[in-house]
Amino acid sequence: MSLDHLLDSIAGRKSDLFGRDFLLTRDKSLDDLRTLLDVSEALKLARESNLATRCFDSGLAVSLFRDNSTRTRFSYASAANLLGLAVQDLDEGKSQISHGETVRETAVMISFLSDVIGIRDDMYLGAGHTYMLEVAAALDDAHQTGVLPVRPPIVNLQCDVDHPTQSMADLQHLVGEFGSLEELKGKKLVMSWAYSPSYGKPLSVPQGIIGLTTRLGMDVTLAHPEGYDLIPDVVDLAGKQAAESGGTFTVTPDLTQAFADADIVYPKSWAPYAVMERRTELLRAQDTAGLADLERECLANNAKHVDWTCDRTLMDRTKGGKALYMHCLPADITGVSCKQGEVTADVFDQYRDPLYREAGFKPYIIAAMILCSRFADPARVLQSFVDHADPRVTG
Amino acid sequence: MSLDHLLDSIAGRKSDLFGRDFLLTRDKSLDDLRTLLDVSEALKLARESNLATRCFDSGLAVSLFRDNSTRTRFSYASAANLLGLAVQDLDEGKSQISHGETVRETAVMISFLSDVIGIRDDMYLGAGHTYMLEVAAALDDAHQTGVLPVRPPIVNLQCDVDHPTQSMADLQHLVGEFGSLEELKGKKLVMSWAYSPSYGKPLSVPQGIIGLTTRLGMDVTLAHPEGYDLIPDVVDLAGKQAAESGGTFTVTPDLTQAFADADIVYPKSWAPYAVMERRTELLRAQDTAGLADLERECLANNAKHVDWTCDRTLMDRTKGGKALYMHCLPADITGVSCKQGEVTADVFDQYRDPLYREAGFKPYIIAAMILCSRFADPARVLQSFVDHADPRVTG
Amino acid sequence: MSLDHLLDSIAGRKSDLFGRDFLLTRDKSLDDLRTLLDVSEALKLARESNLATRCFDSGLAVSLFRDNSTRTRFSYASAANLLGLAVQDLDEGKSQISHGETVRETAVMISFLSDVIGIRDDMYLGAGHTYMLEVAAALDDAHQTGVLPVRPPIVNLQCDVDHPTQSMADLQHLVGEFGSLEELKGKKLVMSWAYSPSYGKPLSVPQGIIGLTTRLGMDVTLAHPEGYDLIPDVVDLAGKQAAESGGTFTVTPDLTQAFADADIVYPKSWAPYAVMERRTELLRAQDTAGLADLERECLANNAKHVDWTCDRTLMDRTKGGKALYMHCLPADITGVSCKQGEVTADVFDQYRDPLYREAGFKPYIIAAMILCSRFADPARVLQSFVDHADPRVTG
Repeated sequence: MSLDHLLDSIAGRKSDLFGRDFLLTRDKSLDDLRTLLDVSEALKLARESNLATRCFDSGLAVSLFRDNSTRTRFSYASAANLLGLAVQDLDEGKSQISHGETVRETAVMISFLSDVIGIRDDMYLGAGHTYMLEVAAALDDAHQTGVLPVRPPIVNLQCDVDHPTQSMADLQHLVGEFGSLEELKGKKLVMSWAYSPSYGKPLSVPQGIIGLTTRLGMDVTLAHPEGYDLIPDVVDLAGKQAAESGGTFTVTPDLTQAFADADIVYPKSWAPYAVMERRTELLRAQDTAGLADLERECLANNAKHVDWTCDRTLMDRTKGGKALYMHCLPADITGVSCKQGEVTADVFDQYRDPLYREAGFKPYIIAAMILCSRFADPARVLQSFVDHADPRVTG
Repeated sequence: MSLDHLLDSIAGRKSDLFGRDFLLTRDKSLDDLRTLLDVSEALKLARESNLATRCFDSGLAVSLFRDNSTRTRFSYASAANLLGLAVQDLDEGKSQISHGETVRETAVMISFLSDVIGIRDDMYLGAGHTYMLEVAAALDDAHQTGVLPVRPPIVNLQCDVDHPTQSMADLQHLVGEFGSLEELKGKKLVMSWAYSPSYGKPLSVPQGIIGLTTRLGMDVTLAHPEGYDLIPDVVDLAGKQAAESGGTFTVTPDLTQAFADADIVYPKSWAPYAVMERRTELLRAQDTAGLADLERECLANNAKHVDWTCDRTLMDRTKGGKALYMHCLPADITGVSCKQGEVTADVFDQYRDPLYREAGFKPYIIAAMILCSRFADPARVLQSFVDHADPRVTG
Repeated sequence: MSLDHLLDSIAGRKSDLFGRDFLLTRDKSLDDLRTLLDVSEALKLARESNLATRCFDSGLAVSLFRDNSTRTRFSYASAANLLGLAVQDLDEGKSQISHGETVRETAVMISFLSDVIGIRDDMYLGAGHTYMLEVAAALDDAHQTGVLPVRPPIVNLQCDVDHPTQSMADLQHLVGEFGSLEELKGKKLVMSWAYSPSYGKPLSVPQGIIGLTTRLGMDVTLAHPEGYDLIPDVVDLAGKQAAESGGTFTVTPDLTQAFADADIVYPKSWAPYAVMERRTELLRAQDTAGLADLERECLANNAKHVDWTCDRTLMDRTKGGKALYMHCLPADITGVSCKQGEVTADVFDQYRDPLYREAGFKPYIIAAMILCSRFADPARVLQSFVDHADPRVTG
């Protein structure tokens, strides 16, 4: 779509993103999500046309990463910079679970002159989303009492429940590959578990993907070995959403079956929900020996499923042997990053460019989330970039 | 006050902040401090009116933190960003005491294109302020020889002697609560020690508070258990200043007495001056065993004074039971952040909003310090923000 | 030279810097290097005349430091800021040697909205330059397939082979001291080893200096104890270049002889090439014991040459006793930063100001490298700064 068409499309749609946090895609209407996709695409076009897109003359984008992350960190920094914000990191130490007064106070102390807060807290089941809600409540309070003149919105950069910046970037990729959101109707997407030699990978990506795609009338299959369940609520909701959207949602332990006639496959490792729950409990109890036992047990379990790998034979079973292979990266590639992993090198190599393109949407999705939460009329802001026509690189 | 009145007030007053470091409030005239308060307030109003306040088109604000700090770090980053500067951290490792050639060389190497240097070095008595003077001398030298075209001013973000960005933010809070600097005359302020289960808290806050408030004609009481003295010079100066300003300065070991009829109370833990001196010596001698002994001894001493806590009974003794409770945060809150601490939860809860507002002045105070040290005519700079009327958020 | 003359000089010369990485000075023509020196000087003049020099309205300058570095980090941050870019650090952990898929993927992930990538990777012989070439190839690929709309150029902030931002800053210093590049013809420069109590200092500075200065018709002497060789290819090339440029290149183990009638001396410690090679092998083999043995052996060898120190007696042998003393800093100064080091305190003190000035060129050299790689017509960009005449500090 051209920038003009995108702006018309955004202006003509009612969305409810202004003044709100972006924590979970399930809290957002489909129109909200459509607007985000359009704004993201518009920002991408503007950037690639060398249009300056700064709507903040100054301001801070706070980042709070409770886990290492190169990709998301760069995406967030790029998004902030695109709009004119400077990033200020809050380095709280890795993944401590803090609560109450400390969270409330810290939330306010970092927000006096801040325009947005990006939080990544995905390590402990039951902790990440809860933490973001605590921060949000503290900011609401401080805004209502006048302590904070601006209530900075929170952008969820990955929690224990959802990974909306990833799933929305994935969706923008799908729109690019298939033409439109509408074209995705009836397409078969397989979100499958895959073997990895590492332990404790978060659930947020598969949960985010089934939570989002079942709303689009797609035929969604979740495939994993027995015992590798996601959070039950999330799976239940996926079923309901599929029924409402005119799609389907199937859970199966049969990987080969699952790939049959698939249009899109997303094979990726994760740790079982039950393991993540036990891990959180052991962590709260600071039971180091218990944690080591759990890791051993979980890796032994994983090892029973080394055949859950995305190889040529599996890919040949997909529609015309040509399904779109997706991954949030980095992938565990057999013979490259590990002895035996989620995907074989020949499959990965074939899809490298689309995989990189997929990742390239994330900065724009994050920027769209910031822009839509801070500006009541995003179309007008984008139009002003076009009207001013200031070059970003001014040589 | 309106922005117009503030600008008139700033323009009509002679101050001597241009081209100077801000290391200690005692080196500054009362008119200097009045100007800083006005500029800080003007920047706050401008920001809250969505006026762009960038007076640097580019430039670096160097930060040198020799101690962990979330609040001051964010305040400094916010201040720099407000004026158009990007923050560049110098991470020297925690609290090493370096001298001589290394300090001189590093000071110059980080300053070639820098517009201001913020330093926090509060851990070792006799080290922090001395270090800042060494940096200042190196910068002076390099400026005089033409190595540095701009001599970046130093802003003291906390040293062993003073904490001017804290005490000035506290003062701006007091002006907000009591109406004006003049209204503070004759008001009773109690800076008191309070029990904390932690050890080695710096002296700079209580020293900063008595050093500043005794200049304003206030009735200042410093209350602490025997042996919990501050640096003697600082206490002596407070007495002299009180006499000159028409106020009073009293030191007492009786907390209950001290709170009687107080208008403002500031109960906060610190380590005794003599302990901090021994600690510095042990540190220079790298005497690990001695340091552990000292910590044990000091905590045992603290434990004799667990009754030095700010509770409802104490607060009821203040003027009308309604004194303003202040703290630099984070506070040790009984039953919340520790078993027994500086303040009870009910008192803290009652004053949470004013405490947060108090903290919210710090970014503007720092920005005012930067602005006044770099611009000979701060009123003209502020006026230019009003005249241009560029919005900061340009949606 | 005035800004006008510099712009004429840049405009009148053909250079091939646009769209190219800056990895090694030997890949660049003399005209390329002349242009860089002129652009650097022009940026310095513009900055010191308070002209705004932002040619990027927003954008990221990625920094990837695989080694601690205060000086280069600040130089890079200053250069980025000067042109309007925000720095985003990629913290990969110190000096791991990664290859293949990981390098390729990371290179792309950090580049979606990036305008330049600065890399410092100088620890392991055979690794740094190779790594940069791998990153470059990944970026080329991703640009050709359309994954990256902009191919961010790489600036080598120090590798195992060369240190072009240092040697070019050194050259700008020489031009400042001697009047012009042409004036350097026939001048005698001594790049000599010097004793240091520390081990494993990189070879890139001496290699960069002899690689660059032998192209200028200078009489270059490389002096070091037997066994302290640089990479043989680099030394061979220096000899060829000297022959072509009408200069000379001499390698000698006689320090006293080397200093005779020198115009410029650059005494600096480094570890022998053979040691660095063995170190890389041991590191790849993760042979900790072997590494400790090698360090012991190397320090014992160094200790045989404590007399290789730049003192007054040596300096008195130079031309009129007044050779220009150079160093990349920090220097190991006898009695100051160590018991016995590269230079005596009296010699260092005498040259402190020129040494600091030398270091002060680095931010501008880096900015010139960025500007020339991103803009086809650097003279026009610089002219636009003059024409707009926007003040950087706008008070």
